[in-house]
Amino acid sequence: MDGRRGGHTRAQILKVDAGHGEVRSDLLATEEPLEIRITSMGVTAPVAVTMRTPGSDFELAVGFLYSEGILTSRDDLERVAYCVDRAGGQEQQYNIVTVVMRPGRTFDRAKLDRSFGMTSACGVCGKESLDQIERRGLASIEQGFTVDHTVLSALPSTLTAAQGLFSKTGGLHAAALFTATGELLALQEDVGRHNAVDKIIGWALLEGKLPLSTCILMVSGRSSFEITQKCVAAGIPVLCAVSAPSSLAVELSRRFNLTLIGFLRDDHFNVYHGASRVHLIGP
Amino acid sequence: MDGRRGGHTRAQILKVDAGHGEVRSDLLATEEPLEIRITSMGVTAPVAVTMRTPGSDFELAVGFLYSEGILTSRDDLERVAYCVDRAGGQEQQYNIVTVVMRPGRTFDRAKLDRSFGMTSACGVCGKESLDQIERRGLASIEQGFTVDHTVLSALPSTLTAAQGLFSKTGGLHAAALFTATGELLALQEDVGRHNAVDKIIGWALLEGKLPLSTCILMVSGRSSFEITQKCVAAGIPVLCAVSAPSSLAVELSRRFNLTLIGFLRDDHFNVYHGASRVHLIGP
Repeated sequence: MDGRRGGHTRAQILKVDAGHGEVRSDLLATEEPLEIRITSMGVTAPVAVTMRTPGSDFELAVGFLYSEGILTSRDDLERVAYCVDRAGGQEQQYNIVTVVMRPGRTFDRAKLDRSFGMTSACGVCGKESLDQIERRGLASIEQGFTVDHTVLSALPSTLTAAQGLFSKTGGLHAAALFTATGELLALQEDVGRHNAVDKIIGWALLEGKLPLSTCILMVSGRSSFEITQKCVAAGIPVLCAVSAPSSLAVELSRRFNLTLIGFLRDDHFNVYHGASRVHLIGP
Repeated sequence: MDGRRGGHTRAQILKVDAGHGEVRSDLLATEEPLEIRITSMGVTAPVAVTMRTPGSDFELAVGFLYSEGILTSRDDLERVAYCVDRAGGQEQQYNIVTVVMRPGRTFDRAKLDRSFGMTSACGVCGKESLDQIERRGLASIEQGFTVDHTVLSALPSTLTAAQGLFSKTGGLHAAALFTATGELLALQEDVGRHNAVDKIIGWALLEGKLPLSTCILMVSGRSSFEITQKCVAAGIPVLCAVSAPSSLAVELSRRFNLTLIGFLRDDHFNVYHGASRVHLIGP
């Protein structure tokens, strides 16, 4: 490409308006593969390759491993590093992240299979997928946390104000973490919707803030099974999305008592489960 | 869930408007896992588990395997079937699809690794990812096909008119195939954006229509590396998206001479590569 700056790449495009074309310079969301590796007891294994927007790569690697149940706490970590012992060029070095576990710490290698999507261990029906998450030891979210409807209604505009001008144009998915009073704690953007959430969770793990039991996560798109599962893994009690949830996201929110909100726009939203955490007006 | 009909699942929700809640019945996009298996020379291997909206499952399985280079033509196929020899219930049976290759037909098992995302064979930088696609034998798209800008501008409204009322609400991604004059050939919708494209390509393979060298593919969201790569695999010369492409989607379109169009709305659009296939007004 013509140039690369942060999460953006500059390119020449032809802008067409009513049949007339004009050459322009434009910014694209950068997409590059990231290989995540884990080292435990002196053995390094590849875990996954994800297409992501460069930036917060350590957070992404750690958040992904935590969401998958491979890392269970910050105490598992010795260090996180880019791969530098490689024949490839500099660009390649920054596309491989190795997460090194502390001496003596290990993980269940069967969980790698799930990350590879190569077995039906994660279930071949929705119910089995939920059962499998329960078997991983994820617990239901406790009831204590509550939030006012006015706080939820203010989240989209806070998110939009915090995003860069570029991001608002639709090239990137956003995920943002808020307090119960609507204060923005963290914002991540990525070409991949799962990656943006993993970057938030990885940030929280590295900062020692897990579980996020007094936080609200907001995503710019839809709520899928995967997004909802990551939320439960991080102990987040409220997940809000600009768009719709899937059926399995709703089933998962019921099973693990997550408050799942969709179509959050202006002062309207839908609650798919866990309405008791949201303070409304009247009866 | 309370009920399940086609790609929709009915659920009770709380609709909140300015702080006042009202219980309503609503439709959700159904999300269920699908395990894809392949049988060759009497051996059955799992290939991937994808979260998808049930429907056109055979098209999805076949399209996925074709996009990954595991199936190379319709002649490879003996049959496609749901798994019925399983202890699980009926719901599970319809979440496993086995693609059986003809006697004597085989495939490169190394390609399964890529599907599992378990090796860095697909490259750990964008350039290597493109090189790897070239090594798979995918060729540049030929120059012959052209389309008028007025045809492109009409695609979004044709797509919207063809989608169900539910789909328009944002619960599903859409992919649609059009002729050079804008006639709709096929439409698929799914909670997963890749799945909608795989279903289109699988349909074309089963119908004996590959390569799709006189067709336009339109997707409801963004163009990623994966979506663009599927388009090249199917020989589609023009890919249009409602939203933005990623940097790697643009690099891929340059490498394989695909016409890549983004932000296609009303009579505006951006051409990121391959403008010579689009007839505009004037010089």
